[in-house]
Amino acid sequence: MTAAPGQSVVHEGWRTAPGPRVGILGAGQLARMLALAGYPLGIQCILLDRSPQASGAQVAPIVPGAFDRREDLEQLRDLVDVVTFDIENIPGPLLISLGERVQVYPPPVAIATTQDRLEEKTLFQSLGIPTTAFVRIDGPKDLAAAAATLGWPVVLKARRLGYDGRGQRVAKTAAELASAWQALGAVPSIAEAWVPFERELSLIGACGADRETVFYPLAENTHVEGILRKTVAPFPDPPLQATAERWLRALFDHFGYRGIMTVEFFVVDGALMANEIAPRVHNSGHWTIEGAETSQFENHLRAVLGWPLGSAAARGHAAMINLLGKAPPVGELLEMSGVHVHLYGKEPRTMRKLGHCTLVDTDRPSLLARTEQLQQVLARQL
Amino acid sequence: MTAAPGQSVVHEGWRTAPGPRVGILGAGQLARMLALAGYPLGIQCILLDRSPQASGAQVAPIVPGAFDRREDLEQLRDLVDVVTFDIENIPGPLLISLGERVQVYPPPVAIATTQDRLEEKTLFQSLGIPTTAFVRIDGPKDLAAAAATLGWPVVLKARRLGYDGRGQRVAKTAAELASAWQALGAVPSIAEAWVPFERELSLIGACGADRETVFYPLAENTHVEGILRKTVAPFPDPPLQATAERWLRALFDHFGYRGIMTVEFFVVDGALMANEIAPRVHNSGHWTIEGAETSQFENHLRAVLGWPLGSAAARGHAAMINLLGKAPPVGELLEMSGVHVHLYGKEPRTMRKLGHCTLVDTDRPSLLARTEQLQQVLARQL
Repeated sequence: MTAAPGQSVVHEGWRTAPGPRVGILGAGQLARMLALAGYPLGIQCILLDRSPQASGAQVAPIVPGAFDRREDLEQLRDLVDVVTFDIENIPGPLLISLGERVQVYPPPVAIATTQDRLEEKTLFQSLGIPTTAFVRIDGPKDLAAAAATLGWPVVLKARRLGYDGRGQRVAKTAAELASAWQALGAVPSIAEAWVPFERELSLIGACGADRETVFYPLAENTHVEGILRKTVAPFPDPPLQATAERWLRALFDHFGYRGIMTVEFFVVDGALMANEIAPRVHNSGHWTIEGAETSQFENHLRAVLGWPLGSAAARGHAAMINLLGKAPPVGELLEMSGVHVHLYGKEPRTMRKLGHCTLVDTDRPSLLARTEQLQQVLARQL
Repeated sequence: MTAAPGQSVVHEGWRTAPGPRVGILGAGQLARMLALAGYPLGIQCILLDRSPQASGAQVAPIVPGAFDRREDLEQLRDLVDVVTFDIENIPGPLLISLGERVQVYPPPVAIATTQDRLEEKTLFQSLGIPTTAFVRIDGPKDLAAAAATLGWPVVLKARRLGYDGRGQRVAKTAAELASAWQALGAVPSIAEAWVPFERELSLIGACGADRETVFYPLAENTHVEGILRKTVAPFPDPPLQATAERWLRALFDHFGYRGIMTVEFFVVDGALMANEIAPRVHNSGHWTIEGAETSQFENHLRAVLGWPLGSAAARGHAAMINLLGKAPPVGELLEMSGVHVHLYGKEPRTMRKLGHCTLVDTDRPSLLARTEQLQQVLARQL
């Protein structure tokens, strides 16, 4: 087709692209990186979210709409071969209903389970995966019982809608616990024992068609105020790696899973305790874009389409630093050799994830020294 | 902005993306890979080409139009911060005129020179860069003189519009040379001595603001019927690398260059002879996406925007195989560990470049063995 003279700029080439189409509920940076991972494979992602200017909608077409509007969901469904999601706060029943009309991966039951911390912890227990002690909190009288069972301090977490440290409080006394409960909105919660962990690790794996699985190496995560700041991978510990893979495989089997799943762990006395599941690509896996043979984003797309999975082996050592809040010093970052900058096209806002950068190196001590330098450059900006 | 209910799928998020914009004349796979390299850095590419369904236009907005229509060029110019190009057949005078109103990189004089094989070869000579002996051919009587000067066989090449082996013929006799001249359309040409080269190498480098330069390692290329089939990099030969870099730097200086430039070389008796220049990202640099710290596409964008360049160091060893003509066996390719598939969204057509795949390895013999396997898989398809 040749355009008429003077025709305005258009962005409709995706409509005739020959490859498969993946619908994504949500249009944040995870959808953005999924869409970008799809293009080299000829996969066209189409998003659904409220804002046609969202991070992901800058690089992929979008159905501007709401997750709970049937017409919007149906419009997306009719355009794509399979539906996935980049966020966890999609109403589970809605996904389950959508799944009756189109393939939805990961399976809606996985998102429904992981949306509720009580169900998630109960699942860990039922699969024999160690996790912190916890008590169900439905009302004020459960609080006293919780402290008696768990000891102090107690970590109170809303059962639903928590991420990046939101919806949780640490309490050291009964008075603090009571006010934490009020601060969370007096919603159904769980109380957990406070765990003096040595480090935080995450395992990311993909499950594809025919139960094919690949597992990335464990990554070590540093959170500040509940928000991920830094990930270094691989965290080289073959026994922990084997254990974590066994548990993630059990979760895959439980859900009849397809896609990327992330499990966050605490390391306590050298052993793993599962903290939580994300049934999606994860911030602690952004290092895989440059640091692994196949990125988590590409493997998620391969998995939901039923394609063969790519190798999850690391390419050397990688460190990922989140760019939070203020506009990052891009020029200065680009001057640092081997720093890979990823911007999400978002306006600066306090603690907002605006982008990340990744360093790769063949040598771990060299990587850690360069990462320290990078963090100093970023600290000067703040 | 929140969309009205039921609004159709849109792809307008690029309009409000906060980063810089790069206009690209041409919308083929090179523009596609440039656009994809830009998104992580927050760079929005906008293309200009006839077809709004072109490979590049599947992943970036396009001004559907013609390179020689002033209105179309002006529309692009008014949307972007800098203009570059993904093809070489843009009329030089038009680029030069465009360059008076907007920054155009690489400099239009570079494309004008490299569009004419006579000017290109003359430039090599003037810069002291060895190249094959050649004779200017303006008419039939020049043909006999050429053979006398060059000996047999003679390679006859049209001065303009040649790429991928088009516009050239090898002649072993005066009769063959006369018919080659007719076959090329009796256009202004050059005759070159036939060079019994041992191998073909290419050097890709970037020149940025303030004459900053980076050079990728030499890559070894295998052509069949004038079309690139395979590139393996690095080709480890420090003396040749140093020589090639010196010459490419001389070309950068000559043109006051900004962007990626590629020089193709023959190796004859262990020494380099320059064959031709491409003033753009190049098929023999596709391996840099996975095989180098910074891809040629990212470095081209950084250069034309005046940003710091990224490291051009290799990450291990890489081999790139072009996927030509028939629909590639994508499923089979994805099953091979560590094969990175890049599809361009194009319909199969004889000898058309539909995509490429890249293998990376820490070890060169292992890479070459795996590349051989990959080529066997592809050969079975043909």
